[in-house]
Amino acid sequence: MSHPHPELGPPPAMAEGALRIVALGGLGEIGRNMAVFEYDGRLLIVDCGVLFPEPDQPGIDLILPDFEYIRNRLDDIEAVVLTHGHEDHIGAVPYLLRERRNIPLVGSKLTLALIEAKLTEHRIQPTKLEVVEGERHRFGPFECEFFAVNHSIPDALAVAIRTPAGIVLHTGDFRMDQLPSDGRLTDLGGFARLGAEGVDLLMSDSTNAEVPGFVTSEREIAPVIDEVIRTAEKRVIVASFASHVHRVQQVMDAADHHGRKVALVGRSMVRNMGIARDLGYLRVPPGLIIDPKDLEAYPPEGLVLICTGSQGEPMAALSRMANRDHPIRVAEGDTVLLASSLVPGNETSVNNVINGLVRWGARVVHKGNAKVHVSGHAAAGELLYLLNVTRPSNFMPVHGEWRHMRAHAKLAALTGVPEDHIVIAEDGVVVDLFDGRAKVVGAVPAGYVYVDGTSVGDVTDFALKDRRILGEEGFISVVIVVDSATGKLAGGPEIHARGSGIDPSMFDAILPEVERALQDNAADGVVDVQQVRRVVRRTVGRWVSDTYRRRPMIIPVVIEV
Amino acid sequence: MSHPHPELGPPPAMAEGALRIVALGGLGEIGRNMAVFEYDGRLLIVDCGVLFPEPDQPGIDLILPDFEYIRNRLDDIEAVVLTHGHEDHIGAVPYLLRERRNIPLVGSKLTLALIEAKLTEHRIQPTKLEVVEGERHRFGPFECEFFAVNHSIPDALAVAIRTPAGIVLHTGDFRMDQLPSDGRLTDLGGFARLGAEGVDLLMSDSTNAEVPGFVTSEREIAPVIDEVIRTAEKRVIVASFASHVHRVQQVMDAADHHGRKVALVGRSMVRNMGIARDLGYLRVPPGLIIDPKDLEAYPPEGLVLICTGSQGEPMAALSRMANRDHPIRVAEGDTVLLASSLVPGNETSVNNVINGLVRWGARVVHKGNAKVHVSGHAAAGELLYLLNVTRPSNFMPVHGEWRHMRAHAKLAALTGVPEDHIVIAEDGVVVDLFDGRAKVVGAVPAGYVYVDGTSVGDVTDFALKDRRILGEEGFISVVIVVDSATGKLAGGPEIHARGSGIDPSMFDAILPEVERALQDNAADGVVDVQQVRRVVRRTVGRWVSDTYRRRPMIIPVVIEV
Repeated sequence: MSHPHPELGPPPAMAEGALRIVALGGLGEIGRNMAVFEYDGRLLIVDCGVLFPEPDQPGIDLILPDFEYIRNRLDDIEAVVLTHGHEDHIGAVPYLLRERRNIPLVGSKLTLALIEAKLTEHRIQPTKLEVVEGERHRFGPFECEFFAVNHSIPDALAVAIRTPAGIVLHTGDFRMDQLPSDGRLTDLGGFARLGAEGVDLLMSDSTNAEVPGFVTSEREIAPVIDEVIRTAEKRVIVASFASHVHRVQQVMDAADHHGRKVALVGRSMVRNMGIARDLGYLRVPPGLIIDPKDLEAYPPEGLVLICTGSQGEPMAALSRMANRDHPIRVAEGDTVLLASSLVPGNETSVNNVINGLVRWGARVVHKGNAKVHVSGHAAAGELLYLLNVTRPSNFMPVHGEWRHMRAHAKLAALTGVPEDHIVIAEDGVVVDLFDGRAKVVGAVPAGYVYVDGTSVGDVTDFALKDRRILGEEGFISVVIVVDSATGKLAGGPEIHARGSGIDPSMFDAILPEVERALQDNAADGVVDVQQVRRVVRRTVGRWVSDTYRRRPMIIPVVIEV
Repeated sequence: MSHPHPELGPPPAMAEGALRIVALGGLGEIGRNMAVFEYDGRLLIVDCGVLFPEPDQPGIDLILPDFEYIRNRLDDIEAVVLTHGHEDHIGAVPYLLRERRNIPLVGSKLTLALIEAKLTEHRIQPTKLEVVEGERHRFGPFECEFFAVNHSIPDALAVAIRTPAGIVLHTGDFRMDQLPSDGRLTDLGGFARLGAEGVDLLMSDSTNAEVPGFVTSEREIAPVIDEVIRTAEKRVIVASFASHVHRVQQVMDAADHHGRKVALVGRSMVRNMGIARDLGYLRVPPGLIIDPKDLEAYPPEGLVLICTGSQGEPMAALSRMANRDHPIRVAEGDTVLLASSLVPGNETSVNNVINGLVRWGARVVHKGNAKVHVSGHAAAGELLYLLNVTRPSNFMPVHGEWRHMRAHAKLAALTGVPEDHIVIAEDGVVVDLFDGRAKVVGAVPAGYVYVDGTSVGDVTDFALKDRRILGEEGFISVVIVVDSATGKLAGGPEIHARGSGIDPSMFDAILPEVERALQDNAADGVVDVQQVRRVVRRTVGRWVSDTYRRRPMIIPVVIEV
């Protein structure tokens, strides 16, 4: 197995007839999936998603792939293929379209409807949307064939990309539910046909590669949800992803079955389920849905609420209910059903929400105590099926952290892919498929681009480092006024602090020392500003460290009057 | 089941013959366990531990119970009983002893040796340490009987407290391993005898009350660890808690069995295992241990390293190895064994450590992929045994979050404790045992006391709120100089910012507006300082919000010269 080293340099010019593959996100992380394929000077992009920030990226709203690699080549893009409608696959499209408005977007009917709604929110009118199903389409030199796959959102696709360099199969996110609730099977027959033709490179979803065996069928969830609703004393509040149409369908069916009305709570839930219903992906029995405003008109035991917030997002309805900061007051006898996965990184938030709800007397049903969710990603057993049916000459695990990609690589090796035909690449690593071999040839920048408020890329890793220091230690600023005419000290020093946990009166102890240091450094009365900054930083920093064993940010401010 | 309401007022004076119980920590949280018992004006304390901070408590080192409730009554304390040597049970003792040095400390031999070492680090010489085993001791009006329990550290105790108000059994942390590796069983027979005598109140460990069934015996871990070491290609690096003597014993036994040498890495691991060996809790085969400095002298396949860092603590050896920031360079063929639980809240850190290690080629074995750890806390099945054998008249779940205490209360109800004899109390809730009934009678303050660096309690929730804002948004400071003689503007405004992600050149856009606002507010030339602050905060705040949709802390600094 070859894998990248930090010493990878820029890639060489492409050999004629080679296909170049660069993932700008999704390799070494769960999120911001984006793969750029290049053949004969033209580009095809598969997915363009966002990554959600971790605690060490405070204040950040979203993380985008770095478009720098393609920024000067936007006109070479033939199309962006979107495998399905999850945020980590489509969330960065509006930001890409800001750079070139008329990039064609390609995907299934539901996927494109969801991206269209998202673009409308960003006030972007897409120029070209091309709906595809299981057929072939040509985008410049790329002949794409689409295959149905099942996942935790309807209408997901895998894509095979044919160029003279060979056939690449990119699975997108997928699983192989053999009894999917909408009857839409992952197209194993199609993959087998492709395998018979010869798959030169398989790029396959690694998320669950560490999980042995097979993911339970979505179908087995329905009776559990039905039972939760049947036995619920009062209201049932279901939290799920706003895109999980099948799960919402199961909840609606169970509610209907037990004569309960359903209210959808939250903007994204209402919006997405509206789209899903309009396009025929969600069957809503007549009269089932009521307006959340009318909840009071129904008895608690006649209600099911469906909302977002299953990941403990602080502003979502469920968190606010847990904190008694929402018009819906959770009370003794209510049942809360978290019908979703627990996305890594959200454990603490979700635990806090569960404790809040339990404290008010709710019964909380979640995947830890009932079979109310199954993953949308193929486990090791399913991944082996795919590997065996496609028998790829080369393999590249995608969509996963290192642990997942390594585990997936091992599975590929077990099915007979030669170890030196398995490529583990991180974001930015350049892989060329040439002469039947996939090889790492270099690397390009693929760092994080942070969205904070309305700005993209303004907040840098440098600013984040400042935030981490400020957030853990606070700051102490020391203001000194200098007479610009004479260069002499004219006022201050004055000390201000926030978040340092040091009582302001304590600064009386250090002020004389700062004053003395300043005088020593301006013996002739003339102030060297840089020197003053250094002296202040050192004097105050040492005092705080010695007195409190803390390291707040020390900010000397020299102002001239 | 009765549970507290926010409207609980201060407790009434105690009835004669009543026993009062106030937990200052550990109820509604996992950590800082501390229960204060009062009878006839005298106090007995069970445990005095710390809580580790969550991400929304940035920069905090430790959280202590608030001693305010007992601060004026320190001389009434007869003793502090320490049930076992974990930080969440003994970690706050040095801080309590700072307030009264000669409080007697009571516990098992190992527990007291660990607290003594801790006190030495704090340069505190304890006045009185009283070693107990399974016998009765009187501390003022409290007659205490100690019972062996097993847990994830040797020598843990439960304590029965006898007063004329009745018998209270406090389990401490416990489980009921029926084949413990040191042969020291939880004293179920003793509990049965106590039950026959009549337990008036059972206070029992709730940590695993949500987990059905029984925790696997510690004994079943040994063969798994043995197999990991047997099949390891090169070095084995084991991360565990520095207090988990039994686990370290198992690793040493397996290393010895396969002819490998063992190096202990990290101060706390070396210190605690030294204590455990000296007291006879750890059997170290002669010649097994080598100095980490001599690692180079042995082949990788002849080595086992035991270190801390199993929770992804950033400064611990294991995290630094994962980041290639440690002399021990993890490489292809190495095996890393996380032989520990995953403490809630640490999921992200541990995941990052695993990915880092896997990236360098290590195989990582952890409780997610092998049976290399069992919990030290009784699961529901074991808790039922205890409830049935003690048959308490009243029950109070302790040591757990709300979800755990509620689940434990349900188990108690299932065994026949009447619902109105089950008390779910949060920290600070006052429970009186009187006339055979335990009842909530009020509440006292029991907030967080933060340790940051050398200071205790200086960092308040107010400072933490500042830190959260600074950490998420950074700050913008606007410095204005005022002539103190005339009250007129003499310099500035100057704008400085850190962590805001706003390019300094952008402030040119807002400076004129600030200047204009200042002039408007000092039309007569004289500055109203409070007014200036308000104007600056509003002007700059609105600009940042409109332009960037962000809310950094805006800090106007007015300095007089």
